[in-house]
Amino acid sequence: MRRWNGWGDEQFNLELPIQGRSFLVDRVGSGSPLSDVSLESVLAKVPETRLLADSTVDKLIDTNTEARVRHARGQSLPDWLAMRSGEFGVFPDGVACPESSLDVQKLLQYAQASDIELIPYGGGTSVAGHINPLASDKPVLTVDMGGMNRLIDLDRESQIATFGAGTPGPLVESQLRAHGYTLGHFPQSFELSTIGGWVASRSSGQQSLRYGRIEQLFAGGRVETLKGTLDLPTIPASSAGPDIREMILGSEGRIGLITEVKVRVSRLPEQESFHVVFFPDWDLARTACRKLVQNRTQLSMLRLSSAVETETQLALAGHPHLISMLEKVLSLRGSAEGKCMMTFGLTGSSRQCASAKQEAKRICSEYNGVYTGTRLGKKWAEKRFTMPYLREALWQMGYAVDTLETATDWDNVDNLLGLMEGSLRDGLQAREKSKNERAHVFTHLSHFYAQGCSIYTTYVFRVADSYEETLARWQHLKNTTSELIVRNRGTISHQHGVGKDHAPFLPVEKGELGMLAIRSLCATFDPEGILNPKTLVE
Amino acid sequence: MRRWNGWGDEQFNLELPIQGRSFLVDRVGSGSPLSDVSLESVLAKVPETRLLADSTVDKLIDTNTEARVRHARGQSLPDWLAMRSGEFGVFPDGVACPESSLDVQKLLQYAQASDIELIPYGGGTSVAGHINPLASDKPVLTVDMGGMNRLIDLDRESQIATFGAGTPGPLVESQLRAHGYTLGHFPQSFELSTIGGWVASRSSGQQSLRYGRIEQLFAGGRVETLKGTLDLPTIPASSAGPDIREMILGSEGRIGLITEVKVRVSRLPEQESFHVVFFPDWDLARTACRKLVQNRTQLSMLRLSSAVETETQLALAGHPHLISMLEKVLSLRGSAEGKCMMTFGLTGSSRQCASAKQEAKRICSEYNGVYTGTRLGKKWAEKRFTMPYLREALWQMGYAVDTLETATDWDNVDNLLGLMEGSLRDGLQAREKSKNERAHVFTHLSHFYAQGCSIYTTYVFRVADSYEETLARWQHLKNTTSELIVRNRGTISHQHGVGKDHAPFLPVEKGELGMLAIRSLCATFDPEGILNPKTLVE
Repeated sequence: MRRWNGWGDEQFNLELPIQGRSFLVDRVGSGSPLSDVSLESVLAKVPETRLLADSTVDKLIDTNTEARVRHARGQSLPDWLAMRSGEFGVFPDGVACPESSLDVQKLLQYAQASDIELIPYGGGTSVAGHINPLASDKPVLTVDMGGMNRLIDLDRESQIATFGAGTPGPLVESQLRAHGYTLGHFPQSFELSTIGGWVASRSSGQQSLRYGRIEQLFAGGRVETLKGTLDLPTIPASSAGPDIREMILGSEGRIGLITEVKVRVSRLPEQESFHVVFFPDWDLARTACRKLVQNRTQLSMLRLSSAVETETQLALAGHPHLISMLEKVLSLRGSAEGKCMMTFGLTGSSRQCASAKQEAKRICSEYNGVYTGTRLGKKWAEKRFTMPYLREALWQMGYAVDTLETATDWDNVDNLLGLMEGSLRDGLQAREKSKNERAHVFTHLSHFYAQGCSIYTTYVFRVADSYEETLARWQHLKNTTSELIVRNRGTISHQHGVGKDHAPFLPVEKGELGMLAIRSLCATFDPEGILNPKTLVE
Repeated sequence: MRRWNGWGDEQFNLELPIQGRSFLVDRVGSGSPLSDVSLESVLAKVPETRLLADSTVDKLIDTNTEARVRHARGQSLPDWLAMRSGEFGVFPDGVACPESSLDVQKLLQYAQASDIELIPYGGGTSVAGHINPLASDKPVLTVDMGGMNRLIDLDRESQIATFGAGTPGPLVESQLRAHGYTLGHFPQSFELSTIGGWVASRSSGQQSLRYGRIEQLFAGGRVETLKGTLDLPTIPASSAGPDIREMILGSEGRIGLITEVKVRVSRLPEQESFHVVFFPDWDLARTACRKLVQNRTQLSMLRLSSAVETETQLALAGHPHLISMLEKVLSLRGSAEGKCMMTFGLTGSSRQCASAKQEAKRICSEYNGVYTGTRLGKKWAEKRFTMPYLREALWQMGYAVDTLETATDWDNVDNLLGLMEGSLRDGLQAREKSKNERAHVFTHLSHFYAQGCSIYTTYVFRVADSYEETLARWQHLKNTTSELIVRNRGTISHQHGVGKDHAPFLPVEKGELGMLAIRSLCATFDPEGILNPKTLVE
């Protein structure tokens, strides 16, 4: 069963190897965990629902307390702290489970007639507060799209698949695979997040180099709004004015509820493999990545870990034999100290993969990269969706983990990365209450464009002796670093979306007139502001 | 000097070979040309300007009659008929020539204060009426962006170039080439159209397979609006809500005037070549194209001519020796009759080109394609921007030429193409006054996506014995076929934009709520509706 207060399935636990533990103790000190409250104690806190009975929708709505608890929070660190402490603050008044666009229309009519706020809910994997209800005079109804999880149509000639918006990643891929197709969209939340959520939050998958972001995959579909049904026709490309699809992408529930998603799918590839190259230092490694993507080498994924992330990953992975062997080889070639690990993926026909592999190896070796084959790449592929489980293991040891991510142009990558890492590493020391605390901070670049790349920074710090103080530490790091990002040419999010947590920083990025455009768009479709209020736009 | 009443430079004329003429006579009958009026007679018709002197902008504005004539029309067939007959109807009251964003701000303030309509003007190459002034109680000021035509900045690391919005294609490429870069955006209007116009009308270039459409190239920039300056930051990709760039792309002057355009540029490629393959029939040829693009073969361009276009091109090209040799070879392989010509481009590193060439040849041969090398491809490349000049030659012989273009999903390509060709070929016969007239109609597919492709249909018909009747014939063909397109899953334009000519058909494509979104966006930035009125949205 799904964990009610953390990531993924209760049955699945990831063990941190002993070397990993001592590595962390060495970096940030020994952790002492905060105690988790029980589900029962939280259930007892849930207030009466404020929803009144309505025969048109009663069958669709569940006001059971456990359903309301399970839909109250996402997966951000403050969400974890709320769930672990039991201090949820607000619960939705009910959870609706529509099974059709018609059901969703009924829910919208009901919400409008009864002045109820609606929050669309996909996999509940938001790390930016998208699905959290806020305190409100109006009742809040969370709409769980999970009942709409089928492949509705597959056009093999045009390679377009139509899905119910609530279809989670594994069901997207398994239903396509049965016909020989793949979508190829693999965000780290893949196990739980949904195709509708990907569109609503403009997500990006690990193999975006081949398949594109969700913007490139989203071909059209259906959105139910308070003004009626918005049908987005599938057209391969058009110069007929602004693209309405682009207004729905990233709309985060403010325009309407996405009920059907049409996506551009691909035939299952002939081949796929992941390869690892080590570089002697960051400069060479980053330049090699830039050259690969600006050269249009046909890779399907590319990821570059900083020296600290490389060291951390190898330590946490707990393969001492493999590592010592690797270090020996690398030290012979002068790249053991400060080494940076690059992983690249090859996907496609055997000719494409062979040609791209040669080209990638040639470019890497120009920057002194040491190619080590597919052994570590296989491990990455096996564990690609399990990293969130590590957070659970670290939590049990008294460590909080969070990530901040952005994207910026190449000329600004090192500058912004340095500012972010510095702000997170030293930020706790700026506060009197945590002046002796430090965070362990490491970064990878994982989405590459000719123009620039994403920056994905992880930080691990010890929980404080109370939930309140732990949250205050997080809030300090999050706020100061988010402000730095948008003041220094970064986007407030490359792949997590805006939600409620990033909304205060959006106006710096979009500017006054950009915000005017977004606000006017939301107000056009939802003048009363009952759809996912305070999300995207404060 | 630029032609005042047609395409391109007066010095440049394209001769139609004698075989081409007899080919056309055979298809639609012998043409007898309408007589063109002189520039002088048109100048005499231009009314007094209604613009009042204003010291803040007087230096920027030219009310000279010739300037007003030269900015009154684009390049659509009705524009040609207006210019050739002298029946312009409406002229702008003046032409402003700003040289900076500040100048544009002044013009906007002046327009708002004095209730004047503004029409942004790039290269004047619209074939959909974008820049045509309409009869209005308010004075109309056309803003020619041609003074802002410089490369302002080049960031080599991030591969981003900043241009003044009025920079025409040749100046974009020559200024980049001096530094070893290319934009790679080559619409057929390349000689005259501008980078700001490409963004405003969402254009696509002949090598979109490699470089992408303008949507993929447009990284950010500056838009002057009535509400202030909209700065679009360059960010490689983002999940931070709806993308404001996508609202400017295709906005056709309704939101503001684009003054600076930042684009994603590429290093000049190592290699480039164009190759021609003949297929025995349309089905095989179209399927080969679909397979090439769905297989992600790294081509830089792809174009497939229907059997009639293939025959027409070979006839109009006037290389009888080459053709008879070619037909001999093809007939040996069973593909002389009904043959379809495909041209594909290879651009990139020598390894990429070699690998893609092998893959392309393998896929083509699976569909019985006969590879003929680069000879015809070289001719295509040499003549790629001269086709509009052919229109002049045909006009002189009494033939009118126009094109209709769309894009649709693969499963609908043949259906829509058949409807369009039928409607254009037989449409004149439905009118009493032209029941004995037929049009010569042919098509190519020239922009390819995994999901579908563009359909570009050319039609040639004899001019009538008057301008009025010629216009009526065009209007009939245009309206009936445009209606067919949007009623049958096509976009009203894949690469020409909406303008005023396509605006009546946009609501079918976008739907009621799509139009609501676009209208609300325009009204947010221009509540009085003084920016390019009736364009995009009627």
